[in-house]
Amino acid sequence: MDAGLLDAGWDSLEAPNPCHRWPERHGSLERMTTRIILDCDPGHDDAVALLLAHGNPSVELVAITTVYGNQSIDKVTRNALSIARVAGITGVPFARGAHRPLVRKLETAASIHGESGLDGPELPEPDIRLDPRHAVDLIIDTIMDNEPGTITLVPTGALTNLALAVRKEPRIAERVREVVLMGGGYAVGNWSATSEFNIVIDPEAAHIVFNERWPLTMVGLDVTHQALATPEVLAAIAAVGTAPARFVGELMDFFAHAYRDAQGFDHPPVHDPCAVAYVIDPTVLTVQKVPLDVELTGTLTVGMTVADFRSPAPADCTTQVATALDAPKFWALVVDALERIGDPA
Amino acid sequence: MDAGLLDAGWDSLEAPNPCHRWPERHGSLERMTTRIILDCDPGHDDAVALLLAHGNPSVELVAITTVYGNQSIDKVTRNALSIARVAGITGVPFARGAHRPLVRKLETAASIHGESGLDGPELPEPDIRLDPRHAVDLIIDTIMDNEPGTITLVPTGALTNLALAVRKEPRIAERVREVVLMGGGYAVGNWSATSEFNIVIDPEAAHIVFNERWPLTMVGLDVTHQALATPEVLAAIAAVGTAPARFVGELMDFFAHAYRDAQGFDHPPVHDPCAVAYVIDPTVLTVQKVPLDVELTGTLTVGMTVADFRSPAPADCTTQVATALDAPKFWALVVDALERIGDPA
Amino acid sequence: MDAGLLDAGWDSLEAPNPCHRWPERHGSLERMTTRIILDCDPGHDDAVALLLAHGNPSVELVAITTVYGNQSIDKVTRNALSIARVAGITGVPFARGAHRPLVRKLETAASIHGESGLDGPELPEPDIRLDPRHAVDLIIDTIMDNEPGTITLVPTGALTNLALAVRKEPRIAERVREVVLMGGGYAVGNWSATSEFNIVIDPEAAHIVFNERWPLTMVGLDVTHQALATPEVLAAIAAVGTAPARFVGELMDFFAHAYRDAQGFDHPPVHDPCAVAYVIDPTVLTVQKVPLDVELTGTLTVGMTVADFRSPAPADCTTQVATALDAPKFWALVVDALERIGDPA
Amino acid sequence: MDAGLLDAGWDSLEAPNPCHRWPERHGSLERMTTRIILDCDPGHDDAVALLLAHGNPSVELVAITTVYGNQSIDKVTRNALSIARVAGITGVPFARGAHRPLVRKLETAASIHGESGLDGPELPEPDIRLDPRHAVDLIIDTIMDNEPGTITLVPTGALTNLALAVRKEPRIAERVREVVLMGGGYAVGNWSATSEFNIVIDPEAAHIVFNERWPLTMVGLDVTHQALATPEVLAAIAAVGTAPARFVGELMDFFAHAYRDAQGFDHPPVHDPCAVAYVIDPTVLTVQKVPLDVELTGTLTVGMTVADFRSPAPADCTTQVATALDAPKFWALVVDALERIGDPA
Repeated sequence: MDAGLLDAGWDSLEAPNPCHRWPERHGSLERMTTRIILDCDPGHDDAVALLLAHGNPSVELVAITTVYGNQSIDKVTRNALSIARVAGITGVPFARGAHRPLVRKLETAASIHGESGLDGPELPEPDIRLDPRHAVDLIIDTIMDNEPGTITLVPTGALTNLALAVRKEPRIAERVREVVLMGGGYAVGNWSATSEFNIVIDPEAAHIVFNERWPLTMVGLDVTHQALATPEVLAAIAAVGTAPARFVGELMDFFAHAYRDAQGFDHPPVHDPCAVAYVIDPTVLTVQKVPLDVELTGTLTVGMTVADFRSPAPADCTTQVATALDAPKFWALVVDALERIGDPA
Repeated sequence: MDAGLLDAGWDSLEAPNPCHRWPERHGSLERMTTRIILDCDPGHDDAVALLLAHGNPSVELVAITTVYGNQSIDKVTRNALSIARVAGITGVPFARGAHRPLVRKLETAASIHGESGLDGPELPEPDIRLDPRHAVDLIIDTIMDNEPGTITLVPTGALTNLALAVRKEPRIAERVREVVLMGGGYAVGNWSATSEFNIVIDPEAAHIVFNERWPLTMVGLDVTHQALATPEVLAAIAAVGTAPARFVGELMDFFAHAYRDAQGFDHPPVHDPCAVAYVIDPTVLTVQKVPLDVELTGTLTVGMTVADFRSPAPADCTTQVATALDAPKFWALVVDALERIGDPA
Repeated sequence: MDAGLLDAGWDSLEAPNPCHRWPERHGSLERMTTRIILDCDPGHDDAVALLLAHGNPSVELVAITTVYGNQSIDKVTRNALSIARVAGITGVPFARGAHRPLVRKLETAASIHGESGLDGPELPEPDIRLDPRHAVDLIIDTIMDNEPGTITLVPTGALTNLALAVRKEPRIAERVREVVLMGGGYAVGNWSATSEFNIVIDPEAAHIVFNERWPLTMVGLDVTHQALATPEVLAAIAAVGTAPARFVGELMDFFAHAYRDAQGFDHPPVHDPCAVAYVIDPTVLTVQKVPLDVELTGTLTVGMTVADFRSPAPADCTTQVATALDAPKFWALVVDALERIGDPA
Repeated sequence: MDAGLLDAGWDSLEAPNPCHRWPERHGSLERMTTRIILDCDPGHDDAVALLLAHGNPSVELVAITTVYGNQSIDKVTRNALSIARVAGITGVPFARGAHRPLVRKLETAASIHGESGLDGPELPEPDIRLDPRHAVDLIIDTIMDNEPGTITLVPTGALTNLALAVRKEPRIAERVREVVLMGGGYAVGNWSATSEFNIVIDPEAAHIVFNERWPLTMVGLDVTHQALATPEVLAAIAAVGTAPARFVGELMDFFAHAYRDAQGFDHPPVHDPCAVAYVIDPTVLTVQKVPLDVELTGTLTVGMTVADFRSPAPADCTTQVATALDAPKFWALVVDALERIGDPA
């Protein structure tokens, strides 16, 4: 057969899984800028993640994609565009993504994020247009059009877009630099005793993403419950004195009340920027390589991210979990990003 | 918000499910040509399905897409192109689709279809090129570019492509005419006591497809085990005397041996063309509306297509099953299609 | 070790499973009386089963045990004693059994059997006392105190008592003649699309019983839905003209209304006596050896009795299903039993 | 109906669950002797548990029952009797219990406990006879024949006996003082990433026991992995200088090697006596009330003991977990018990 006839497709996947590489991280004196795709469902903490990624000079936002979750896809997509206006993000493609989980019924988190998904501050009208592509295609195109090993995927919502993307174009699993996601928790849950919201709302998508061949870092509740917006943190953010900082302050006011009422927290955990912070500076988190998987059939445990700590991780382990957060360093990064953003026109 | 900003997306899915229409079928004196997308994994019986769809004048093949299943995606895609050459199919886009199931491990049916997926006859080199699009996008584009209610989806393999398509572009569920699939079995299995191969190799995809809002007809083992290639059938096919008929004869020789050895059949059941035959002439099958769903978690029953026959189907039921086959009428359609195809250049 | 020290226990179960014997059934000119333990949850059809077993001379009731199910254990136990008085059953031990399923929550069938579990006729005060033993111990003692191969277990309710008995005293699995149970259905359900009430209310117990080493015949909905109390049947019962026959008539009046309202039946299926009838005369049922198991984890299929008809049953298969009922012969046995019972003092 | 007719049975379970009492524990100046039933599968650590219970004056062994687990029921029963001879236990009934799990296939732990279940020391011939009753009946009789609230159940193996007992005689759930079990782990597993051996070998039995109405304390791997037989501990045991102490030393030698090889432990965790120690002196463990349940259907998590720490436990919570061990105090109790036992005739 003329091999050329089939060249629109991908290489056979029957090839042996190449010994997988974790990206170089430590020891380089001068850190390169990391190009990231932020796949999010804003969402109060997604908003902070977006601001951190935009304001910090060591990451470059090359695409922003949305996914249902904290609210419907319509609402979180509009929220993403509003945040872009607040933060002065321009020149970055935004694409709308999945509207529902692969298999399960749609569930959102209005108890935490309100009716709009971003209750609290007044949201400005978006002033940029969506990319015409589906998020899945923007993710695929961005990864395939950049050099191998240069794009980092940072999902902070349900993993539906990533699952659809890697099933449509399996070559992205080899080509991304790594996946650093906010979701799950090896020892703690929020949506059930054992499961976290981003994972449990589409556990099949999470199972796909956790079992792919890319290096994957899970930044879960185990550490994000240490990223608390305490009065000291809020004071430091307020002291920045800009419109985006005030926007964050108003988000945190709402978030604090919601978390107190819904889950009994004294100060709200600001989950999503922890994943971005790790891309910026890996010393923000302590991480440990460990086999990870997602439970799909448990009556009490569906959506649990199961880590097997019984033995040292095997050499070819492609997954790791965050086990501790340097909270002062984390919040310093957030405040620094807000200062750099300043007051966009 | 400026609605125009979001017009690259789809309508909100929170709208109530419109009362669903089954396509008009009976009573029209002059039957219109039905435009179909055949989503297949050739596969011996897929080959007959392709020939039947190509040869019969009342269906028009508007796209052919492939999916892993009977063999790997590389092999079945090449097989589809080889069949196109045997049958003289030109001017129809062929696109390669999914290479593996959504969640489960890849499993193929070499015990039934051999190493090539189409063992038996010599397979000619393909002489057409694949469409550059992924099958998922060819399916979406074909449905969205045609008038609503005009495209019928006929999957004869795993339902991964359809599942990915409807999750990426949910509007196709409203826009297709109907889905007529070969797969499942409400009272009989082949890959386990309760499950059929096409469904059980990607039960999550099947769950997605069975629970969408399109009218869906399941043509399962309940009827395809009546579509036996008996000596009389084979004689009638041989009597056509053309190269495509000889090709079918050689496929059936291999298929007969494989089914005898693997599943104890005296004559092989030729599953996939039953779905095409129903699109051509619904009187080939007896059908019954019944709620249908796919079991995802059963230890003994994963992949079972569960029909609830306890009560009459509700008025808004969007699923039906085939319960009986008019085998002489079915085989007459196959022979007629071979006669019409004749000997392509 | 002094073997005598452990002689209160049973033989090691690590011994190889002895090639299992199905009881001799056909060809003996003079049929022996079969000694049965009826394990029931009366229940309208249980009452008929009890009357049939009592009235027919070829079976001898050696114990009657009760189990929650159609109603609570208190109610069905009282009902059993009331039926004993109606039928004139004396000298047979009655023991109360399990009050709830092994693992699942208790569910009863008041929609079919009413608040008392035996709504319709007036129920006389019991005039016999319960055996002081638990049903589990009465079952074990009866089997262990009789010759091997002489006791037939006929459960017509949930299988909790049998499961507890065989886990407490595993030797009964070798020692019973066979198990002939009413429950399940390989192709039809009543409590869900795929499950029957007796099995689904305690599927773990059913799994235990179906996987033990005793010969097991499943008399399921596949045949009991043919055991309809039609007007002709009711007329024949009424013609007997005795108090027990009138009692059955009143039971059937209530049962007919309940089945019409709850499940849309024109005439009520009288399930339980089908199992007793098979013990009396195996030609009442057509049976087929087939591997059987019980689904425990299915979302749609929990409690389904899964039969694997794909190949001929292996030689050591210990399970069979009833596939057809000779309804006239069945009802003739019931009427005959009522005639023999006559009008007890 | 004459209530007397049914008085062999139990009270209706439809009665509301009485507000459940945790046994008084703290504040009593003079501690009463606690009467315990030890349900075990010796097993190296079971042997230490038995010696601790026998030697400590604040607990009285009123029955010892066995269950398959670390080895077959034949082997662990013989081991229990051998330990009785070593320890000089007389006048306490020993009864053999369940030979296999309720539903799952039998699995033993020869990798940890060797072929005999108690490899290492030479095992003396038993010199006492088994009680003729099944363990289930000895448990029931002991609880029903003693004053309510006086008997504590201490299971250190699979929970099959307890599950069978409470299903046969539900009144024991009200009548026991409490259940203090070794098994499970809310944050750590040994037989899988999330499950502990005693629970996962019969998860259905564990589900029954964890969901009953008795006060239940789970002493799991979370604390027993702190009960390590270090060289210092072994030296203290050796210093006792008696035959039983030497017996323990030889057990620990084997155990240390097995745990090093099978699970990579430097020093073996001696699980089972932790539960006995808690009955003797509750300050040995830190405990926390928390809702507990057992996962039955998870692919990765079957047998996991799921604790829900998200909110404070409700007032009527009947379950608690041990979260920390005072290891010096624990080992001091073990050494003290050996000293008190001395050298039995």
